[in-house]
Amino acid sequence: MSLEWLDPKGDLQDMVMSSRIRVARNLKDRPFPHFASPEDLEAVRERVLEILSGVEHLKDRRIYHIDSMDPLSRQVLVENRQMSRALAQGGPGRSILLDLKGILSVMINEEDHVRLQVLLGGLNLQEGWCVAKSLLDRMGEDNFAFHGDLGFLSSCPTNVGTGLRASVMVHLPALARLGRMEAVSNECQKLGLVVRGAFGEGTPSHGAIFQISNQVTLGPSEEELEEKTTGVVRRLCEEEKRAREVLREAAGENLEDGIFRAFGILTNARLLSFGETMELLSSVRLGGAMGMLPKMSGAFWNRLMLDVQPGRIQALAEGPLDRKGRRRLRAQLVRERLAGLESCP
Amino acid sequence: MSLEWLDPKGDLQDMVMSSRIRVARNLKDRPFPHFASPEDLEAVRERVLEILSGVEHLKDRRIYHIDSMDPLSRQVLVENRQMSRALAQGGPGRSILLDLKGILSVMINEEDHVRLQVLLGGLNLQEGWCVAKSLLDRMGEDNFAFHGDLGFLSSCPTNVGTGLRASVMVHLPALARLGRMEAVSNECQKLGLVVRGAFGEGTPSHGAIFQISNQVTLGPSEEELEEKTTGVVRRLCEEEKRAREVLREAAGENLEDGIFRAFGILTNARLLSFGETMELLSSVRLGGAMGMLPKMSGAFWNRLMLDVQPGRIQALAEGPLDRKGRRRLRAQLVRERLAGLESCP
Repeated sequence: MSLEWLDPKGDLQDMVMSSRIRVARNLKDRPFPHFASPEDLEAVRERVLEILSGVEHLKDRRIYHIDSMDPLSRQVLVENRQMSRALAQGGPGRSILLDLKGILSVMINEEDHVRLQVLLGGLNLQEGWCVAKSLLDRMGEDNFAFHGDLGFLSSCPTNVGTGLRASVMVHLPALARLGRMEAVSNECQKLGLVVRGAFGEGTPSHGAIFQISNQVTLGPSEEELEEKTTGVVRRLCEEEKRAREVLREAAGENLEDGIFRAFGILTNARLLSFGETMELLSSVRLGGAMGMLPKMSGAFWNRLMLDVQPGRIQALAEGPLDRKGRRRLRAQLVRERLAGLESCP
Repeated sequence: MSLEWLDPKGDLQDMVMSSRIRVARNLKDRPFPHFASPEDLEAVRERVLEILSGVEHLKDRRIYHIDSMDPLSRQVLVENRQMSRALAQGGPGRSILLDLKGILSVMINEEDHVRLQVLLGGLNLQEGWCVAKSLLDRMGEDNFAFHGDLGFLSSCPTNVGTGLRASVMVHLPALARLGRMEAVSNECQKLGLVVRGAFGEGTPSHGAIFQISNQVTLGPSEEELEEKTTGVVRRLCEEEKRAREVLREAAGENLEDGIFRAFGILTNARLLSFGETMELLSSVRLGGAMGMLPKMSGAFWNRLMLDVQPGRIQALAEGPLDRKGRRRLRAQLVRERLAGLESCP
């Protein structure tokens, strides 16, 4: 099973890691998951899978019942960004459908009956929405609870209307170093967007990776939401570029020193925690973008920042590892990957 | 002008950097420096230089009047361990005579009229004392203030008797890491020895380098003092070896991680302070001795730990550098020197 987002496309690969469209839907005449009995949830799952089985271009897909998955497999799907943390907790009627390209996820009985997700590399919400729209059309929108004034209904009022959340993962190391992320976050809020850590609400940002998404789902059309988020991300990337020049002027040699030290630690350490690794990788990536170190592709960074996560590390080892074991294998993986960079001029 | 101590000899090069014999003498019938007028000090200098000019094997030597030296040249001689910090402050009648091999220093009008120093690489106090003795004999011991009961007289009572201080510079990273240096220091004190930072009394230890020297100068003969100091240093080296094994057992992977990180920082940093450099070099040196990194010779380490000092760095630049300039050049020097190590298996 591959992950399409690992190969970002477009002009902002330097900063934008991936784009995600997520649409919430609930079946008509069935209780929302929070109020549903286990039997209701089971019936919802069956009905949703029935609907999905009728969708032509979802022939190559896998379906997992969360409660049947071991903890590590769940964690890997979360780290892959294919599954939400909430769904990973399991429970009655909870399932996920994944396509083999790692673009599509359909989460069943998370907060809503259906949460459809399209995940693509780089800044590509437009295509993401097209893919999602096409799938929703084929699923038959009339299967879902809809209100003439409000639009599609959802468990949480913040998702009522389009049910759409457009999110972009973006690397903003210069803005973070200059302590500007709070201001950026406030700016975004005024525009109806929200800035969060890499795994959404309440999660920390590791290595200056932030998730930008729309806060409002009611009112504007899906296209408007997608376009607005894309526009704000483009502006943030411009701000990040300017921040890099400010940083070069202000910190200059200290910045370069920090970047080379990060590189030295990553290419030599024998034990690396996830948090430290992300911070150091963030520095090295910034160094590449600023011409201090060889510049690696967005694909290189997406894959590396994916693979250093605790679940992926254990998947690589083909079994559970204790904390020290993870740190040891992470350090080895990072050394191997960065070895290519070292031989660059 | 070379420095003989940069090429240590003997079996303990791993740990022992250099050995120093220092002998305090004062001219008969002249006031001790603290009580002497500038004219007295001038007269002392003339008399001492007259005595020295009669010594056959001191034909190839240089004499510097401290007050005529620029601050950087003074600092370099201190860092070379050829001159004491006290003498470097300058003042009336203060001079130094140096041989061209960097073995002999005769400091004039420091705390005593004459402080003769012999500096050799590795653990070699015995040869140091032979060289010093031979020079003292040629200078004519009857020129110096001597008391039948006490021995040679000196400004400070702690130097009365033989006037001899035997000191050894030794790298004890495992004992330092295990927090055992206070206990070691107490042990030494009971044996009449004292443990100090690299530049003697009141100076900090950078990079786990300590100076071990005798505290008592009155009573035992010079040979006894030299032998006792040598014996204690040998025992300390044994303790250090055992401490390395304890450290390997106790810290294992964390120790290795720290050593490789130190190597990574040293081979990549663009700015390095003296203190940080010494700590990191200490780790890398320990890593070499413990088989984790390629093992470099005592000569390699003596030279590197000498050259990273602030004065030596500026001498290398052939002129004064500000703090940032020193840090930049130090980082460059360290990267160049360690590049050889990097290509080792």
